[in-house]
Amino acid sequence: MNLLYAQAGGMTAVINASAAGVIAAARVQGARIGATLAARYGILGALAESLHDCASIDVEALAATPGGLFGSCRFVMPVEVEQPALYDRLFAVLDAHRVGALLYNGGNGSLEVVARVSKAARRRGYPLACVGVPKTIDNDIEACDCCPGYGSAAKYLATSMREVCRDLASMMSRKGRVFVMEVMGRNAGWLAAATALAARDVDEAPHIVLFPEVPFDEEALLARAETVISRLGYCAITVAEGIRRTDGSPLRARSHGDGHVRFGGAGEEIARLVSDAFDCHRHYAAPDYLQRSAAHWVSAVDHAQALAVGHAAVNYALEGRDGVVAAIRRLGDDPYRWDVVPVEAATVANLERRLPPEFIAADGMQVSEAGRRYLAPLVMGECLVNCADGLPVHYHRELPGLPRKLSRYCGWADEIIYARMG
Amino acid sequence: MNLLYAQAGGMTAVINASAAGVIAAARVQGARIGATLAARYGILGALAESLHDCASIDVEALAATPGGLFGSCRFVMPVEVEQPALYDRLFAVLDAHRVGALLYNGGNGSLEVVARVSKAARRRGYPLACVGVPKTIDNDIEACDCCPGYGSAAKYLATSMREVCRDLASMMSRKGRVFVMEVMGRNAGWLAAATALAARDVDEAPHIVLFPEVPFDEEALLARAETVISRLGYCAITVAEGIRRTDGSPLRARSHGDGHVRFGGAGEEIARLVSDAFDCHRHYAAPDYLQRSAAHWVSAVDHAQALAVGHAAVNYALEGRDGVVAAIRRLGDDPYRWDVVPVEAATVANLERRLPPEFIAADGMQVSEAGRRYLAPLVMGECLVNCADGLPVHYHRELPGLPRKLSRYCGWADEIIYARMG
Repeated sequence: MNLLYAQAGGMTAVINASAAGVIAAARVQGARIGATLAARYGILGALAESLHDCASIDVEALAATPGGLFGSCRFVMPVEVEQPALYDRLFAVLDAHRVGALLYNGGNGSLEVVARVSKAARRRGYPLACVGVPKTIDNDIEACDCCPGYGSAAKYLATSMREVCRDLASMMSRKGRVFVMEVMGRNAGWLAAATALAARDVDEAPHIVLFPEVPFDEEALLARAETVISRLGYCAITVAEGIRRTDGSPLRARSHGDGHVRFGGAGEEIARLVSDAFDCHRHYAAPDYLQRSAAHWVSAVDHAQALAVGHAAVNYALEGRDGVVAAIRRLGDDPYRWDVVPVEAATVANLERRLPPEFIAADGMQVSEAGRRYLAPLVMGECLVNCADGLPVHYHRELPGLPRKLSRYCGWADEIIYARMG
Repeated sequence: MNLLYAQAGGMTAVINASAAGVIAAARVQGARIGATLAARYGILGALAESLHDCASIDVEALAATPGGLFGSCRFVMPVEVEQPALYDRLFAVLDAHRVGALLYNGGNGSLEVVARVSKAARRRGYPLACVGVPKTIDNDIEACDCCPGYGSAAKYLATSMREVCRDLASMMSRKGRVFVMEVMGRNAGWLAAATALAARDVDEAPHIVLFPEVPFDEEALLARAETVISRLGYCAITVAEGIRRTDGSPLRARSHGDGHVRFGGAGEEIARLVSDAFDCHRHYAAPDYLQRSAAHWVSAVDHAQALAVGHAAVNYALEGRDGVVAAIRRLGDDPYRWDVVPVEAATVANLERRLPPEFIAADGMQVSEAGRRYLAPLVMGECLVNCADGLPVHYHRELPGLPRKLSRYCGWADEIIYARMG
């Protein structure tokens, strides 16, 4: 049997490490696995029959490269009963390429795809082990103690906040200064919480952390900011992009033409609020994509876990486990110990794990001790970066496509499926 | 004689390396230099007699710490004829602490201070060697081939752009996607130009670079963006914060309450323009202070140069050179060779070196080959980062103040001078 791997959802600094884990684990299996294939742009590439053979890939170089080598999509397969022809096509492609294992590397939406494809395969009697490989900087997959991608984004953001703190502490200002860093997190404050690791005492940044889980309280924010600015002369605030008012409305949301609400700007709004209230200087940073692609500063723990879930997924597939996700389980905080266990994809898909209340301090504007205990091990360790001419070397190339065995698919969503497939 | 060192202007990731260079160079001089003192918050600390003794400082740890350990100010001494009493005070403090050398670590405004204090000392017959130690991420000091601080910011921004390029290339999108990174640079496009190092061919980010030196041409931008998006599906654009329209007005400037124009938002505006024109997704990153404090990813060349200008400044002071700045001179591109030479501060102060036209490509939206040749060596080499618990360890502490020998100064600008001095 052949193995098919694909990447989905938003990118992380270490999703390619999971790809490398899959490819390397499959290679050591020898004849038990025929070819390791990869689909271009996630499940869309499987539907379009746009596939690559991973035989020639340099897994070590791949594991150090941000983004997703094979491309990603956010397309979630509809349930089979709604679009049975789409599943006909998918299984025709899998069958044509003798695929016995589908490994799907993504977040909550992608695990939904795993659960649905797995169910469809069983119903059709197609022999498939469909396994989820978790990935998200948002750290919001249920039943995973942490998600590969999160630890590296956490390390990058905490490091950045600590560095900026030194800058803020240096600048003399009579008026005072507020600095806001807006981090990703529409519904969950995991990334915002991670920045708290930068501070070892109350005088260090971030002095305030605003979570999507805590309704925004302007009065409390301003009172706290005033205290900090009068003590230190500056105040550093982490703002999750998805913070909301008590009525649930986002602090600032802009329409995105197509009717989709696009979050963003909450950090800038907080900076404006504070600087207007105290007539102080304001600065506002939005790392945006930088926080999910900073492969030059990944967490060694996160990188190891990204590799490990790739490895584990191959083993699950060989054991015939179907419809599971390779989840990281915490065995101990200090020393940090973890392993990888299979969890039913259907039971966790599309749930969104938010920051538990016990990880947030009583005032709603800081991380609790329990939260810090949880976070601390995930940013541990540095990885060497292969550089040339002073900049990181990334592995990317035009991968030769496998010859197609089927004719072009014409049916539901074919214009989505073939967009940019070449 | 004693030596007094101070830091001024905006921070960089390596200004403390220059401080370490000064302190280490002074230490090896033994009896030729009595004590190495540092003023808190730049020249303000000298005026306030807020001084530290650097004897106990761990220079190696200091050299790896972003921000300025001693604090910085943007206060530029008025010319002596306007405020002679201020100079009376300054020389009283220098005399009380037997200061024979003043080393001032800053950018264009700080070199003006060097020139003015040097001139005042000569006129008064005060034996002082006043030496400038250059520092600015803006790279805009005349007569310096490059400025310490620039190479590290350049490396950080080029690395970030290269990493984001991998992310952009991964994401399937039918609509297309524009990504904008706004970098510092009000009048000079040095930092914007540096991001061009991320690309090794025309398909790699940044596909477009907008400089303050080139009047913004909306039509040309949109035409280029359309070409790139239709070819690749995405387009990455670097925008200097200070880009201007043909009439010289900033693309977007917001009033900052006190009447000062605050730049910022130009990148967001460009992202909006492109996404509105082509109905594509947009993302916008503003690294802001992160780009000038990223000590976890400094250029080894830049770090070495920051140390070297500190060393050289001490030597100049001992040689009795007064009113000079320790400038980096380029001796060769490939292999890159450089040394440090003294340049008259008065001839370079407050000039602002912009990107020369020959460093900008003919289309005004990219860096020329000559520009790339200039930029390439400045980002070379990585430095090991000392981490604990997965985050960089910084050197910062409450430094004990030297006992004051004079009474408190009461006079022009004393409320500025004593603000936040404790």
